[in-house]
Amino acid sequence: MSNEAHVRKMFAKASFIRELGMELTGVGEGWCETVLTPKSSHQQQHGFVHAAVVTALADHTAGCAAGTALSPGQDVITVEIKVSFLRPAAAPRLRARGAVLRAGKNLIFAESEVFGVQDGGEKLVAKAMATLSVITNEKLEQNNSRSS
Amino acid sequence: MSNEAHVRKMFAKASFIRELGMELTGVGEGWCETVLTPKSSHQQQHGFVHAAVVTALADHTAGCAAGTALSPGQDVITVEIKVSFLRPAAAPRLRARGAVLRAGKNLIFAESEVFGVQDGGEKLVAKAMATLSVITNEKLEQNNSRSS
Amino acid sequence: MSNEAHVRKMFAKASFIRELGMELTGVGEGWCETVLTPKSSHQQQHGFVHAAVVTALADHTAGCAAGTALSPGQDVITVEIKVSFLRPAAAPRLRARGAVLRAGKNLIFAESEVFGVQDGGEKLVAKAMATLSVITNEKLEQNNSRSS
Amino acid sequence: MSNEAHVRKMFAKASFIRELGMELTGVGEGWCETVLTPKSSHQQQHGFVHAAVVTALADHTAGCAAGTALSPGQDVITVEIKVSFLRPAAAPRLRARGAVLRAGKNLIFAESEVFGVQDGGEKLVAKAMATLSVITNEKLEQNNSRSS
Repeated sequence: MSNEAHVRKMFAKASFIRELGMELTGVGEGWCETVLTPKSSHQQQHGFVHAAVVTALADHTAGCAAGTALSPGQDVITVEIKVSFLRPAAAPRLRARGAVLRAGKNLIFAESEVFGVQDGGEKLVAKAMATLSVITNEKLEQNNSRSS
Repeated sequence: MSNEAHVRKMFAKASFIRELGMELTGVGEGWCETVLTPKSSHQQQHGFVHAAVVTALADHTAGCAAGTALSPGQDVITVEIKVSFLRPAAAPRLRARGAVLRAGKNLIFAESEVFGVQDGGEKLVAKAMATLSVITNEKLEQNNSRSS
Repeated sequence: MSNEAHVRKMFAKASFIRELGMELTGVGEGWCETVLTPKSSHQQQHGFVHAAVVTALADHTAGCAAGTALSPGQDVITVEIKVSFLRPAAAPRLRARGAVLRAGKNLIFAESEVFGVQDGGEKLVAKAMATLSVITNEKLEQNNSRSS
Repeated sequence: MSNEAHVRKMFAKASFIRELGMELTGVGEGWCETVLTPKSSHQQQHGFVHAAVVTALADHTAGCAAGTALSPGQDVITVEIKVSFLRPAAAPRLRARGAVLRAGKNLIFAESEVFGVQDGGEKLVAKAMATLSVITNEKLEQNNSRSS
């Protein structure tokens, strides 16, 4: 399976991402792009998109960028993420771009930017940095059956 | 409105949190507790709870802890959050506890811990630190109408 | 005092930065560049440059970038920083570039990249994101005399 | 070599830590304590202890806590750290306590708190979370000779 196919599977098989309505709009070596059209069910108490929805975009897009740097039989899980919310995410459309900063044997560092798209322009609403762990599919299956 | 009432409103009015199924189970001066029973719609591609769902718990619980430190007419929004995912969130129930680390006039620092609850025991699955900005309700209303 | 003059002062007056040997090599609207020639006194136990020295470069360079976005009578202090150490900092020369991500009225978000310079090439060894608080010089003087 | 001996070596062999004047005051399974008496050479431009000095305390103390969780022949390096600066570090003495949050086979998560000690009381001035990578001494020696 090519890395692009792998990333498409990271989207198709993630229920939470599918339910949110995130879409994969582009993927290449070391990068990935996604969009989300916020719904009222994504809001926090002030009517803005909830920080956790922005984090979902930032995290999954960074993860998919990392997914393009894997060898066959490998997968990634997020070890940690830091997200700065630069502006309220109040635009009718959000676009995210993830990029690999460094792909090591065991760890991949990635970043992602989330833009609010409105009136033909874009504003950076959030930026994230994440560390991802490279794991083998075998190990994942063990974790799933034992749930440590 | 008391701070406890304010925190209850931060829950009741946040559609995303309601849809996820997060529940407020306790609140006091400087702290807040919540629970979530993960559903299959919260999963990422390996069948674990998605990092962004864990972040939603961590962020909203930290935010509600911060909400207990406000004066009347004030509210908080998350400026940034950092979440470390210590273990796969694979338990049938997640419990989060948020606490204020320092409440300043303009910024509140809070942390939160997310535990997986299973077989009568608990394991720390994630820990987060967040910075929140204290804003006035007036300013929020301006932001909502202008959406800068 | 122009912002460039202010940034030069942020360098000249910071004893710790001067002692480390950091130098300001460039500054403009929204950005700042610095260099450091690591010494043996900067090392951790494995002979690499200590993570805290890399953080000093990352933090002070991000702070100086933020310093270019201030109005007269204002200053910045770091609220929080997150640094990812992508590679061991083992090069004979480190170069850092800081940039403002967003300058608000009360908070400035900045990022910085630290490169190892060796054999005519550069490698990204660390990347950081920081949140800075805009404060007035008056308030600083109060803090200094009271040290809350 | 016991883990306590290993942690003492992490102190003794780190030139930067020695030059700063950090001292190891306690170590046990999963934790570590240190102190620093700030000097004028540790200051930033406003006369406070520089954020990077606080980070040095936070990082090295978290790292030493992680060092207590290693097997023989292993060592740790910091992968990333996030530090929140809750108050200006203006006290005549700083005390740090690091603790392991989770020790996995390849990654150790630790946190640390830095307190300002003054007039017989303590105030939390900073809190940090770090991810550390477990490496073998063999691999370290290769890195040192090749400096990738």
